Amino acid sequence: MPQAFAGVLVPVLTPFTPAGEPDAGRFVSFCRWLLAEGADGLAIFGTTSEANSMSAGERMALLDRLIASGIPAARLMPGTGACSITEASMLIKHAVGHGCGGVLMLPPFYYKGMTDQGVYDFIAAVIDKVASPALKMYLYHIPPQTVIPFGVELVGRLIKAYPGTIAGLKDSSGDWNNTAALLAEKFPNFGVFPGSEVFLLDGLRHGGVGCITASGNVNVPGIRKVYENWQTPQADQYQADITLVRMTIQKYPMVPALKRIVAHFHNDPDWAAVRPPMERLSDAQSTALLADLEKIGYSLGERRREAAE
Amino acid sequence: MPQAFAGVLVPVLTPFTPAGEPDAGRFVSFCRWLLAEGADGLAIFGTTSEANSMSAGERMALLDRLIASGIPAARLMPGTGACSITEASMLIKHAVGHGCGGVLMLPPFYYKGMTDQGVYDFIAAVIDKVASPALKMYLYHIPPQTVIPFGVELVGRLIKAYPGTIAGLKDSSGDWNNTAALLAEKFPNFGVFPGSEVFLLDGLRHGGVGCITASGNVNVPGIRKVYENWQTPQADQYQADITLVRMTIQKYPMVPALKRIVAHFHNDPDWAAVRPPMERLSDAQSTALLADLEKIGYSLGERRREAAE
Repeated sequence: MPQAFAGVLVPVLTPFTPAGEPDAGRFVSFCRWLLAEGADGLAIFGTTSEANSMSAGERMALLDRLIASGIPAARLMPGTGACSITEASMLIKHAVGHGCGGVLMLPPFYYKGMTDQGVYDFIAAVIDKVASPALKMYLYHIPPQTVIPFGVELVGRLIKAYPGTIAGLKDSSGDWNNTAALLAEKFPNFGVFPGSEVFLLDGLRHGGVGCITASGNVNVPGIRKVYENWQTPQADQYQADITLVRMTIQKYPMVPALKRIVAHFHNDPDWAAVRPPMERLSDAQSTALLADLEKIGYSLGERRREAAE
Repeated sequence: MPQAFAGVLVPVLTPFTPAGEPDAGRFVSFCRWLLAEGADGLAIFGTTSEANSMSAGERMALLDRLIASGIPAARLMPGTGACSITEASMLIKHAVGHGCGGVLMLPPFYYKGMTDQGVYDFIAAVIDKVASPALKMYLYHIPPQTVIPFGVELVGRLIKAYPGTIAGLKDSSGDWNNTAALLAEKFPNFGVFPGSEVFLLDGLRHGGVGCITASGNVNVPGIRKVYENWQTPQADQYQADITLVRMTIQKYPMVPALKRIVAHFHNDPDWAAVRPPMERLSDAQSTALLADLEKIGYSLGERRREAAE
């Protein structure tokens, strides 16, 4: 039985080659680097990962490469969202087969205006089809992209039907009230992760177990500081620091901005590539972003940590 | 070079077995029946087809079966929408390889708030990857599901970049003003299809070439009557008749309602099955729907046509 996830999880950016293909080599190196930075888990194939701009086959091939390269499966929470029960259950079987610590599961996201019962039936059918006691499913609530929500009542029904399988939720609603409502339910053995570090401290104070956040790709040490020190007097200052970094980055389109930061600080310009429908930052946006980050004294990962110690 | 589509196209419902698998046998029979009813083309794997609740592999297997059964490929316009360039181009290559008359192409629909440039780059990358002069692509504008639109300006850019390939558009916005704006552009060799027969007559009067409509699954003869007689004095009455049928059905969730109607009039209860996240009609809804249809004198296909002749 894998241990439940907690702490700072990163929805890992996916590098693409100049020809637009997933770049497995860079991906493996980057995952290693994130773990070395202190990430507790890697939520590969999330929204930030442009996973929904990759085919199921491309995702499975990248996961195979990570495992083959020795990244511990227990630290991986691949996104397995898909519009069909067929594809979602195939992705999950593959992840469970590799021993992944969990999977992050979107609701079916093409058809809008579906009922909670319809979404429940979809998730139930997927779990029944996978039929593995090793499956730990984290629900992925992200209505800005899916429109279809995992509301509190629906979550409660799924936990009740699949106790041991439904293990937690990532709340990317951007709405603290929703996270608070979920935490107030105190579902047993159920880990709630805000989908942004902006809500990390508030989450921890109300029973959350960490966060799964895009900016983890460029700020694991800062975010860990809040996670490790949340009960100390410095917690609010640490939180203010990481909130400032997040707010600075999200003035720009988030995924292209994060890739531009990685390209800059890892001295690897190819990292800036995205897959359509996303667009890379313009030169003017890139210059402005890097200037904004310099203004707030941001520098990447190890460098800042060394400076602080 | 396939002939351009025109007339009454049906986004064919996909039957599922009691175990939830696509039912190829029933699908082939139903496609044959629709052509016999007078459908000019079959837009299989559309929204109404629950195509987005099927994997790419399931869709390709069904298309293989249709072709093997002798349904003419030139009459088929399979939906090839997918969130990734990889999967969309694979589906299109498969359809073009079979000689399909065209494909119906969604914009990438997971990520919201994408720019027109990003959507343009996605479509361009797909067309470039397929790289076939035989490809006839019909754009599928359906913002109620995708949120991402194919706006008039974007459509114009795509036609200009890929004349001979971008062949038309299905407008399922439900907004006549959008259809009128597209028709006013008078793009050459570009067929505009309203996504509902409610706008068929208006469309034809402004340069539209037909319609691609869900209710075609249960009312081809009625809809054809408008298409064939649109320049006669009876046109408005015929339009009123089919609008009444449509309005009656769409008081209920559209896809489950259509499947219920097929189940009833084809005496084949298994037809009512849907895949989650859709739900089949309740018994009460089914009874009410059939009573509503009886009230307006609706009966299916051939039977009504025979009665009218």
